Amino acid sequence: MAADDEENASVGFASDLGRTIAFSDGVFAIAITLLVLSIDVPDGFARKELGEFVRDEWPQFFAYFLSFAVIGRFWVSHHAQFAMLRVIDPRLVVINLVYLAFVCLIPYPTNLLGGFNESSVSVALYALVVGVASLLALVMIRYTRRHDLLVPVAAARAAASERALIVPPIVFLGSIPFAFVIPSQTPFIWLLLAVDGRFRRS
Amino acid sequence: MAADDEENASVGFASDLGRTIAFSDGVFAIAITLLVLSIDVPDGFARKELGEFVRDEWPQFFAYFLSFAVIGRFWVSHHAQFAMLRVIDPRLVVINLVYLAFVCLIPYPTNLLGGFNESSVSVALYALVVGVASLLALVMIRYTRRHDLLVPVAAARAAASERALIVPPIVFLGSIPFAFVIPSQTPFIWLLLAVDGRFRRS
Amino acid sequence: MAADDEENASVGFASDLGRTIAFSDGVFAIAITLLVLSIDVPDGFARKELGEFVRDEWPQFFAYFLSFAVIGRFWVSHHAQFAMLRVIDPRLVVINLVYLAFVCLIPYPTNLLGGFNESSVSVALYALVVGVASLLALVMIRYTRRHDLLVPVAAARAAASERALIVPPIVFLGSIPFAFVIPSQTPFIWLLLAVDGRFRRS
Amino acid sequence: MAADDEENASVGFASDLGRTIAFSDGVFAIAITLLVLSIDVPDGFARKELGEFVRDEWPQFFAYFLSFAVIGRFWVSHHAQFAMLRVIDPRLVVINLVYLAFVCLIPYPTNLLGGFNESSVSVALYALVVGVASLLALVMIRYTRRHDLLVPVAAARAAASERALIVPPIVFLGSIPFAFVIPSQTPFIWLLLAVDGRFRRS
Repeated sequence: MAADDEENASVGFASDLGRTIAFSDGVFAIAITLLVLSIDVPDGFARKELGEFVRDEWPQFFAYFLSFAVIGRFWVSHHAQFAMLRVIDPRLVVINLVYLAFVCLIPYPTNLLGGFNESSVSVALYALVVGVASLLALVMIRYTRRHDLLVPVAAARAAASERALIVPPIVFLGSIPFAFVIPSQTPFIWLLLAVDGRFRRS
Repeated sequence: MAADDEENASVGFASDLGRTIAFSDGVFAIAITLLVLSIDVPDGFARKELGEFVRDEWPQFFAYFLSFAVIGRFWVSHHAQFAMLRVIDPRLVVINLVYLAFVCLIPYPTNLLGGFNESSVSVALYALVVGVASLLALVMIRYTRRHDLLVPVAAARAAASERALIVPPIVFLGSIPFAFVIPSQTPFIWLLLAVDGRFRRS
Repeated sequence: MAADDEENASVGFASDLGRTIAFSDGVFAIAITLLVLSIDVPDGFARKELGEFVRDEWPQFFAYFLSFAVIGRFWVSHHAQFAMLRVIDPRLVVINLVYLAFVCLIPYPTNLLGGFNESSVSVALYALVVGVASLLALVMIRYTRRHDLLVPVAAARAAASERALIVPPIVFLGSIPFAFVIPSQTPFIWLLLAVDGRFRRS
Repeated sequence: MAADDEENASVGFASDLGRTIAFSDGVFAIAITLLVLSIDVPDGFARKELGEFVRDEWPQFFAYFLSFAVIGRFWVSHHAQFAMLRVIDPRLVVINLVYLAFVCLIPYPTNLLGGFNESSVSVALYALVVGVASLLALVMIRYTRRHDLLVPVAAARAAASERALIVPPIVFLGSIPFAFVIPSQTPFIWLLLAVDGRFRRS
């Protein structure tokens, strides 16, 4: 499904942009809601005291809220990007689907991270999946700017968004080597993004 | 993702309110539908008589219908709140996401409550998650009133809603100590809300 | 959450009907899609031949397609009912939520029926859940007719719908005693509805 | 639920096409998002090295991305077909539901294919489910052309779509015999579709 071959296609007569936004919103809403399924009931729950339960489960709740913030942040950013579009072309539909494939995958590394938070594989896979998704968000904004798909008034704003969206893939993909050295501490690197104002305002 | 830092951002050119409502509705619809996954097939089901099945499973059905009513009630209330909005700002988008994170979490304590209805941890966690979600609903209505995001004609109505929305967090969070003394009876405290007219009309 | 107490409430300023339809459609779409989770990978799958696989799994595929047809049929019927509405009132919102609680529950008895198709409890529970949902569909159409919520031009059509919707609850609830005598044959009683023209056209 | 019997029915007063599209989009969005649940945490994950993890899990990731591409492609194609419709009739609603029943089933053979990629039963079932879904997509376009449901300007385009949509059912259903001889290599036959330009532009 190389994007190159889709160039001449045109995917319907009307409302492509609206239906793509609605489909993407649906996917974000479902992916964010499926996160709860990654929290397991601990073995021997019935006999647990509160303190023991919290000690066993906090990595799962941490992973849940982390991924909720990540997917929520992707949704807000996707929302802002697609609100600037004048029109959509078939290649952007494909890039958007590849991007959504990585967003939808997030519940899996969330599950691993919540259950095995000291495993390098868990942490590296989480950083890889979120990093690739954020890289594809950057690819999308570049694509829409270069192929003149934006409403004219959004030009300056889109340029600023593109600059801001460079940060998250650097942070997530750049954290992968740390996952093999200090797995338990690597999530704190990701949390740096929460204090980066440029990212938040993209 | 402190709300303070989002102040100057503006999240897109158009239809933010509509897309936030559609996303929230999607999340409510999915969370309410995932509840059914918390009902487990009992061990040795194939050999069970009806009486034995009902005796084993009623806490799971009780938890299912309780959470369906809770999430359904949250949806009706969210619906009424967002119908009064004139405009949405980025900070409200963030508060709404944090609120939805707690709504989406409800299937997890529902699962615990259905499977371990005599455990203090189950009951306390259920009360905590629902209590925090209802507290955030109150925070949202206060925020929209104070930051002039409402249509002018809704002022009196929003004030009445805010007063009514004070009750549920008090009931749920206030029931947490009871969960450690009389766990099996604590859900009856929550059911008091069903007979509180002010809450229902908010 | 007795409907009686909701009488004086009014749930928002605008678009209640549209948002209720969108929410219901979301719930139908999710419930129908979750059915696939009720099909289990059989034990020892890796060593199975095709014939053995089909022999083990056919009750699960039967249950999947049966419930897909049932929920799909409920959706078409809900669709037709709500297309006739002029306006929605808060009590109808509540009846609709109770109806949806039973529609959303369908994946659970589907799971039991697919796994234990000779168990009386499976078959009776399936008939009960689908029967109550179809009874609530009847209650909704009666309610909208009596409380003048329909567009005037739909009166004759709604009366015909109400007559047709009497059949499914009779068939499903009436089949419950058979589940305790001839569980394996009871699903064939339900299939009679597929050849009843009046039901299909409601 | 034979389509023949639906002939005289008319399913509501307004907005049937819009609501059917919205429902279908919801089902596509959920089915594509549920795919992630088919990826299992491998046994003994906590002690695994990255290399061992990748060696064990790649069939699951392959199956995930394959099915994401398949369902995404179905969505784009459904999107294009329904954008050409002038009106919908009750029989098309039924054909569309049967089509969606097979699209929704895709996560099940995805699960089998990911877990048991050398099993003939996995591969044959995957090819059967996707093949029947693509056959039903062809049936839908033929039906809309023959029953004059299309906007007039779409005639040439719909004829081209119908020709292109003949390819996928031939490839998938035609690959079933290969599943019993060379199961591990059969997925490469399916990938041929990705390089077929006519299919991509339908």
